[in-house]
Amino acid sequence: MTRPRVVIVGGGFAGLYLARGLEDQPVDVTLLDRQNHHLFQPMLYQVATAALAPNDIASPIRSILSRQKNAEVIMGEAVSIRPADQKLRLADGSVIDYDYLVIAVGTRHSYFGHNDWEPLAPGLKNLEDAEEIRRRVLLSFERAERERDPAKRHAHLTFVVVGGGPTGVEVAGALAEIRRYALRRDFRRIDPREATVMLLEGGLRILPSYPKELSERAKRELRRLGVEVREETMVSDIRPGSVAAGGWTIPTQTVVWAAGNMAGPLTRSLGVPLDPAGRVIVEPDCTVPGHPEVFVLGDVAAFPDHRYGHLPGICPVAIQMGQYAARAIAGDLERRPRRPFTYWDKGQLAVIGRGHAVADIWRLQFGGFAAWLVWIFVHIFFLIGFRNRVMVMLEWAWSYFTYQRGARLITWPWNAGARRTGITGNTGEHRSADAGPGRAS
Amino acid sequence: MTRPRVVIVGGGFAGLYLARGLEDQPVDVTLLDRQNHHLFQPMLYQVATAALAPNDIASPIRSILSRQKNAEVIMGEAVSIRPADQKLRLADGSVIDYDYLVIAVGTRHSYFGHNDWEPLAPGLKNLEDAEEIRRRVLLSFERAERERDPAKRHAHLTFVVVGGGPTGVEVAGALAEIRRYALRRDFRRIDPREATVMLLEGGLRILPSYPKELSERAKRELRRLGVEVREETMVSDIRPGSVAAGGWTIPTQTVVWAAGNMAGPLTRSLGVPLDPAGRVIVEPDCTVPGHPEVFVLGDVAAFPDHRYGHLPGICPVAIQMGQYAARAIAGDLERRPRRPFTYWDKGQLAVIGRGHAVADIWRLQFGGFAAWLVWIFVHIFFLIGFRNRVMVMLEWAWSYFTYQRGARLITWPWNAGARRTGITGNTGEHRSADAGPGRAS
Repeated sequence: MTRPRVVIVGGGFAGLYLARGLEDQPVDVTLLDRQNHHLFQPMLYQVATAALAPNDIASPIRSILSRQKNAEVIMGEAVSIRPADQKLRLADGSVIDYDYLVIAVGTRHSYFGHNDWEPLAPGLKNLEDAEEIRRRVLLSFERAERERDPAKRHAHLTFVVVGGGPTGVEVAGALAEIRRYALRRDFRRIDPREATVMLLEGGLRILPSYPKELSERAKRELRRLGVEVREETMVSDIRPGSVAAGGWTIPTQTVVWAAGNMAGPLTRSLGVPLDPAGRVIVEPDCTVPGHPEVFVLGDVAAFPDHRYGHLPGICPVAIQMGQYAARAIAGDLERRPRRPFTYWDKGQLAVIGRGHAVADIWRLQFGGFAAWLVWIFVHIFFLIGFRNRVMVMLEWAWSYFTYQRGARLITWPWNAGARRTGITGNTGEHRSADAGPGRAS
Repeated sequence: MTRPRVVIVGGGFAGLYLARGLEDQPVDVTLLDRQNHHLFQPMLYQVATAALAPNDIASPIRSILSRQKNAEVIMGEAVSIRPADQKLRLADGSVIDYDYLVIAVGTRHSYFGHNDWEPLAPGLKNLEDAEEIRRRVLLSFERAERERDPAKRHAHLTFVVVGGGPTGVEVAGALAEIRRYALRRDFRRIDPREATVMLLEGGLRILPSYPKELSERAKRELRRLGVEVREETMVSDIRPGSVAAGGWTIPTQTVVWAAGNMAGPLTRSLGVPLDPAGRVIVEPDCTVPGHPEVFVLGDVAAFPDHRYGHLPGICPVAIQMGQYAARAIAGDLERRPRRPFTYWDKGQLAVIGRGHAVADIWRLQFGGFAAWLVWIFVHIFFLIGFRNRVMVMLEWAWSYFTYQRGARLITWPWNAGARRTGITGNTGEHRSADAGPGRAS
């Protein structure tokens, strides 16, 4: 009898915890990812704001699974699924047969029908996004230093973050800090402390999934750092050089998009009901209706749960789903019936700045330095791989005690044009840089 | 009386040591660079071979000079010089007046008239180059893992390094090691140890600037690591998928170019005699003939010196020239006559692999572990900035004791197409990746 083949699409937290959970089972595991690395997404905003290097928060998936004998890793992109034949098709045309399929591909940002805003307002989902945002932020200061026209200079020094969820709060807080501390002495003609950081939230309050008091506390802390927080302010338009929101026109060259998530096209090929964000509405055992051999895990699963509403798109959900699916597959092999997935809610944490966070953990709600310490230890604990833990701890210690940011590199896509020009104004030579507002001055 | 303005083009070793050397002088220093960071170029091959992260060997120029009150940093690209008017023109059209001009822009690789080879065989001069080579090397292993055709698989696992100078030797040695140690357990269908690394040198022997015995020793060590060293083998053609050299046709997807240097176009605008590589033939005080206010330093200076022939393109030369020019400018202000520049030859060092190097220092010639230790301490000592020293030491300790490589990330240029595809075969969506042989399979 051949061993069942478990094909996992996506090497995020759900996919990796599932693969690791099948280590001792009589199955063959194939993990497929478009990238060669697992990414510790909760700290991605630290790469976007130059505190950590990409390397600090990513590990090659092959390394993580190198000692797991029943697992192989394929770098490739899944484009469609034929559940009836149990086949997965990749972008290069090859087809993989599966006995179990696990879709754990995560989501991209949703621009609510305005996909033309994407090049002007990058989201923050992968290392490339983070490096692009870092490039735009750092270049804005460089351009401001050289700009004589005061209006243009101020536009270079205005940073708009759209979306007041945890990512938006963290990015806005980190931008406020880089401006106040890290860059303070570096410029001669501008004072980076005069930069404006705006956080725009369309809903009633920032951190809407947190208790109201913590939203208030986070807003207070952000304002103390000098962030302009505007709630109930919907973005109506983004153009090169400006954002329109709540009747305002804000001249800016740097917009970060942290509002809304959307599943990619892969889930559509399943031919099952999706929610408005393209996520698969799963059964209580996290599988596709009618296909108990197809699991959908993590952000891309819409798991209707009466106690919590939809489950939030955070690591603990993905990890617990991955662990659950491993137990479910192991149980199938022993012909045990599946129990429904239950989420053990450990709470939520969002960091605001150096020494400040808000926490809602096991019904305890607290903020300030204590919450920040909890945040650090929880995140270090979950960072995969010993090396990264030590390195990130050192990077943090360094930037905590010196207020410096170690990863302030501006690099360009490799090609003959980009390599030779660096910063050249409107020469039109950089495709990706030109796409954004950073080049539109 | 206004203070003289010293404009330095290039934030490499020569430019930085000069700027620092003018700290206490009554001058205003403007340092111009296309990049925002100083790069520790001697360790660039470690980024290309995934041992160090870009961040480990680069520091923002602004940080390095942030406490120097008489210095400002501009990110921008110089395109032409009018020595008669003492004006420097930038790519964005702006013009900078100078009292002293210092050209320390370094060189690019020369393809000896075959510029069409460049996208197929990237050189190794900046972080973007290093990240591109890292991407190609790591993707080759990924593609080999998925390739069923044995001939194509072997082409993916063949790495050709052109040029047997120190850079070529270091890259070839590091590729041999990544193949033997770091990736050993990571793949299921291929054995990375079966990869072929070829080092092609057109001249009589590798490391031609070293004593003959050290060349022999380096060749022996490289062969022990499993590198195919071919001397007196000129590359006659590079096409997508193969290299022709010395009558051979070598099927390969990854070529690294480490042969020959060439100055960029900036020096041509001076209107003075250049050597065949475009370098300025300087006076004994490192200035342009007829313009004692224009210094040319580092790799871009052709300094004819009867004792050594041309000075080598290495850090100590650049550093000593920068220090010399600072003294010369300070002397001018006190109306002291200039003495000619003299180079204090401290020797040469090239690393071959883990625990192996060759050294030619103060007439002592030695190799092996002792030379490697000297290499490590010399390089750590020169790394600019305390933080980088500690971090790099830790990264090295980590990779030395575990044989692992911490920086094995494949990332892509940021744009909507690239972000969504990752590895997709011949979809033509990645401009920079498609330009190279890595995508041509």
